[in-house]
Amino acid sequence: MIRINENYTKLAASYLFADIARRVNAYTAAHPDRPVIRLGIGDVTEPLPAACVEALHAATDEMAQRATFKGYGPEQGYAFLRELVAQRDYADRGCAIGPDEVFVSDGSKCDSGNIQEIFATDIRLAIPDPVYPVYVDTNVMAGRTGACVDGRYEGILYLESTAANSYVPAVPQAPADLVYLCFPNNPTGAVATRQQLAAWVDYAKRNRAVLLFDSAYESYIRDPAIPHSIYEIEGARDVAIEFRSFSKTAGFTGTRCAYTVVP
Amino acid sequence: MIRINENYTKLAASYLFADIARRVNAYTAAHPDRPVIRLGIGDVTEPLPAACVEALHAATDEMAQRATFKGYGPEQGYAFLRELVAQRDYADRGCAIGPDEVFVSDGSKCDSGNIQEIFATDIRLAIPDPVYPVYVDTNVMAGRTGACVDGRYEGILYLESTAANSYVPAVPQAPADLVYLCFPNNPTGAVATRQQLAAWVDYAKRNRAVLLFDSAYESYIRDPAIPHSIYEIEGARDVAIEFRSFSKTAGFTGTRCAYTVVP
Repeated sequence: MIRINENYTKLAASYLFADIARRVNAYTAAHPDRPVIRLGIGDVTEPLPAACVEALHAATDEMAQRATFKGYGPEQGYAFLRELVAQRDYADRGCAIGPDEVFVSDGSKCDSGNIQEIFATDIRLAIPDPVYPVYVDTNVMAGRTGACVDGRYEGILYLESTAANSYVPAVPQAPADLVYLCFPNNPTGAVATRQQLAAWVDYAKRNRAVLLFDSAYESYIRDPAIPHSIYEIEGARDVAIEFRSFSKTAGFTGTRCAYTVVP
Repeated sequence: MIRINENYTKLAASYLFADIARRVNAYTAAHPDRPVIRLGIGDVTEPLPAACVEALHAATDEMAQRATFKGYGPEQGYAFLRELVAQRDYADRGCAIGPDEVFVSDGSKCDSGNIQEIFATDIRLAIPDPVYPVYVDTNVMAGRTGACVDGRYEGILYLESTAANSYVPAVPQAPADLVYLCFPNNPTGAVATRQQLAAWVDYAKRNRAVLLFDSAYESYIRDPAIPHSIYEIEGARDVAIEFRSFSKTAGFTGTRCAYTVVP
């Protein structure tokens, strides 16, 4: 007889987005004249810019002619895109990332959800709270946690992100094997300094852990002292995988294209 | 210390596509004047037809204007597509499938690879041989098999598809919980009759098993007596999930769009 993956029954409804909506509504009611930058929910409203529209039309015309039609592309993504990513997102910021370390995909949600499958199921997890719910939920479904008790899953080391630490968790005393970090953070908007990120790289080296660094929102960084990539930190190549998305920038809102860097 | 998913180390290189290439080359060398319809490797060469090109241009223009821009769509897919699928692919062939039972996706490879995650890891698998390697490999990575011995994984009930049974395996004596079927078959091109499919539905009911029916190549069927969908068989709604792809038809070659039906 067929049986379901019982781990799914552990999934508790995430209250994160409902909680954000409640707080946003309360704030805007109390301060109707203050603008609110909504970093919580991921939907988008702005049209694609002219450069993207022209490129999509040109690509459609390519697919309309046998001479220029493209079949399945290289599994890692087209070289022209990987080379530009390596140059502009990394080399230009002093990070030694090669085009062959860039994996193009259809979105950071898929990438950050699927990546956990390459690791063992009995590893120790450290995940910030609050954070993008996909990190937790995919690990619950994969069987890396116990039951949900009072809104938290047994077996996860939660990294408290509160006003007391400006929403940037310090490295814990306890060891972990796989650590999720997201800066600028979804949903708090907090950013991590070079020193804070260096502490995480040092923690990963001491514990032989892997950092999963989600920088989907890096284009929102305005302070030039804040790193855009974990690879701006010495030694991060040895311990970190980074997720980047085009869908949060002003260029490509809502259209599925992202990449993962695995040095 | 981080550790990998050890199941990956069981993965043996699939020789299916290399074997197909070798046989095709030998045949075309021996019969240079005979046309060969290649159903093995999934790449495509034909351009998109005018209707698809026009629709892609129109959709691009929609995304270029704030008034018509679309953000993230409904998670199950847009209703206009699900309603047309339910009508033309199912109702028109006498299958009672509703639009709310259709799940639109970015391809049958992803769907047929991901679906196994909803089931327990200690279920019994039955998988045809030869077949699309994704069915086997995703179950190996999920830990549902033992080691690979002489090209076959321990723990899988292989359904022999040979010239002796015209490449349509009969239902086995042994029970299984999850059965993969693919008709028209990739790579053999074999199709299953109504009677043969009814035997599988009966087998699934007797064993309380689920059939995963991949009909990505249904548009190649020319014999009007051959079912295009498992749901043309009485009772299949109770036991079968079906995978369909637009990427194998003359309309949408190589562009990622597919759907899964879960009644």
